[in-house]
Amino acid sequence: MSVPNNQPASELSGETRPAATLMASEIAEQPAALEATLAALLPLRSRIAQVTAGRKRLLLVARGSSDNAAIYGRYLAELHAGMAASLAAPSVATLYDAHVDLSDTIAVCVSQSGSTAEIVDTLEWSKRGGAATIAITNAEGSPLAEAADLALITQAGQERAVPATKTYTTQVAALAVTVDALAASFGRSGALDAEFAKIGDQARAMLETPAETLDAMAGALAEVDEVLTSGRGLAFGTTLETALKLEETCLRPVRGLSYADLKHGPIAIVDHELLTVLVAGPSGPTVPGLTELAGIVREKHSMVIGIGGDESFRAACDLAVPGPDSSETLAPLTLIIPAQLTVERLAHKLGLDPDAPRGLRKITQTD
Amino acid sequence: MSVPNNQPASELSGETRPAATLMASEIAEQPAALEATLAALLPLRSRIAQVTAGRKRLLLVARGSSDNAAIYGRYLAELHAGMAASLAAPSVATLYDAHVDLSDTIAVCVSQSGSTAEIVDTLEWSKRGGAATIAITNAEGSPLAEAADLALITQAGQERAVPATKTYTTQVAALAVTVDALAASFGRSGALDAEFAKIGDQARAMLETPAETLDAMAGALAEVDEVLTSGRGLAFGTTLETALKLEETCLRPVRGLSYADLKHGPIAIVDHELLTVLVAGPSGPTVPGLTELAGIVREKHSMVIGIGGDESFRAACDLAVPGPDSSETLAPLTLIIPAQLTVERLAHKLGLDPDAPRGLRKITQTD
Repeated sequence: MSVPNNQPASELSGETRPAATLMASEIAEQPAALEATLAALLPLRSRIAQVTAGRKRLLLVARGSSDNAAIYGRYLAELHAGMAASLAAPSVATLYDAHVDLSDTIAVCVSQSGSTAEIVDTLEWSKRGGAATIAITNAEGSPLAEAADLALITQAGQERAVPATKTYTTQVAALAVTVDALAASFGRSGALDAEFAKIGDQARAMLETPAETLDAMAGALAEVDEVLTSGRGLAFGTTLETALKLEETCLRPVRGLSYADLKHGPIAIVDHELLTVLVAGPSGPTVPGLTELAGIVREKHSMVIGIGGDESFRAACDLAVPGPDSSETLAPLTLIIPAQLTVERLAHKLGLDPDAPRGLRKITQTD
Repeated sequence: MSVPNNQPASELSGETRPAATLMASEIAEQPAALEATLAALLPLRSRIAQVTAGRKRLLLVARGSSDNAAIYGRYLAELHAGMAASLAAPSVATLYDAHVDLSDTIAVCVSQSGSTAEIVDTLEWSKRGGAATIAITNAEGSPLAEAADLALITQAGQERAVPATKTYTTQVAALAVTVDALAASFGRSGALDAEFAKIGDQARAMLETPAETLDAMAGALAEVDEVLTSGRGLAFGTTLETALKLEETCLRPVRGLSYADLKHGPIAIVDHELLTVLVAGPSGPTVPGLTELAGIVREKHSMVIGIGGDESFRAACDLAVPGPDSSETLAPLTLIIPAQLTVERLAHKLGLDPDAPRGLRKITQTD
């Protein structure tokens, strides 16, 4: 069964809940937003290939949720296109104005508003260094879109809740399209087309995550003071976005860590006062390690919530929900949805407004 | 006045304290370790230039404290050598074994033990991708040293406390030497020589940080449950290392964030229950922003500890200690020392053993 696109997820649970929040509405709009974005951007792949011809590496420029989307783009570029990729340190551009040779580089700059001065300035800087530039933004005609060699406009519609949801997943989709275009030179482009056609339905299925499980997860999160998220590889960006959503919406410090980094020190702080959220793609080489980590963390008396993974992974967790029925490659387009739904419920449980967390504005200006 | 190299810092405070820990001894050995490392590695700059000739980008491979050292190397490469630089995602090598073209790349792999399989495997992978490879390790003859085209051996001597101190600062020094060699093609090599000669004395001066201030900072840290560190640019690696030292030694969750990232969400969680540690170089374009951040964070009733910066910066903090009398470029070789001294004292205050935090071994094996 499909969920109508604009119906708030909160109406699906069958329980009495507060009036739907903007965040809940926008979470529920994601199937349509993803379909519209893919329909608009997939035909631009030949144009992307044209603008980036001859370039050998990808530089991603972003902050906040957009940065978490960019981290997916970074892994995908190396794994799907065989192209070296990295995240920019914007201060090198905006504070130091360093002269770096970027003549072999494609700079992909991601900002939902297209108005964050830091990202626009870093795009201009990368252009001065010789890079080809692509903007991924939800705002046509924004400074970022105007400054780039090519603008990829996500079709999320206006986002009014402060926490990014539909603008994040459509950015992830735009990055998948971009990297698929770059993969053309390796003869791999098009390999994802059949699955791109299913993304909307995968998002609808994620919206149907059982309300009881979401409530149980939100309830467990409401009872602890410390939360840590861990994941790796293609789903690592989703892991970090889960941490950011938990932190900015519910006002609690949350770390997102690779499970390798976790073992290098921070594992020392895992105990019964801390809840661990593990995020995994549906398959692939990271799942066994995350399954093992679930066991290690539970031995330290930390409760483990699992999102995604396979059946063994979920069996190793205290509470778990499946991710999308997809490849590991494209799972990050929809894998965040159960986390978004959980966070929105958690905010209600904590008596907070998920739409407007303390101290945040929709467009963040950094230098 | 100089501090004798092997005298534990704890003997300098003039107060009655528990028997010196290994960590305190090893903190105090850093002036000599830094001098020995620079003496051994500076003459290798022509060899580094030879091994890396014609390469256009730097890929750093590391985990844990070594990763924090590598982050300094990444900024330094772009700012001092004008060479694009990034941190590797080891899972791309070790779990996915992706085919990435690294024929234009220098891979610098950092591991104190030289025995972490993940780092050795990623070095081998980068070699298969066509990279020139350099190992930075404290263990001559280790698998990492043997596998690299060139091994730069830090002269820290054996480190017995689990938290990395002297192996971290000597890695930072090795990265400064490496990047200085890479800068040769831009006619800038040698510009740091006069300052390299002063590093030992700068480290000695850091060991003389007044005991009362260190005690006050440790006391403030002992009273809060949540700690956040922030910094940016060349001192960002020091910021993250400060967070890791606090976290792994004292068993409390600590986030290290760029102040730009902090403004994109996590600022929402700053309140009186959280203490903020700001880390700044002695000068440069990041200092005004961090000074402003100190004010913003104090308005949110979070106590602010400052390390480094200029007088305005320190005046904006609740408690602060100066960093080294150095350039912004080389400050990270010694700027961590006040944080190390504070963490060692904090562990005592919390009744913990700074030498052997719960759940950690000296060599971490990850895949």
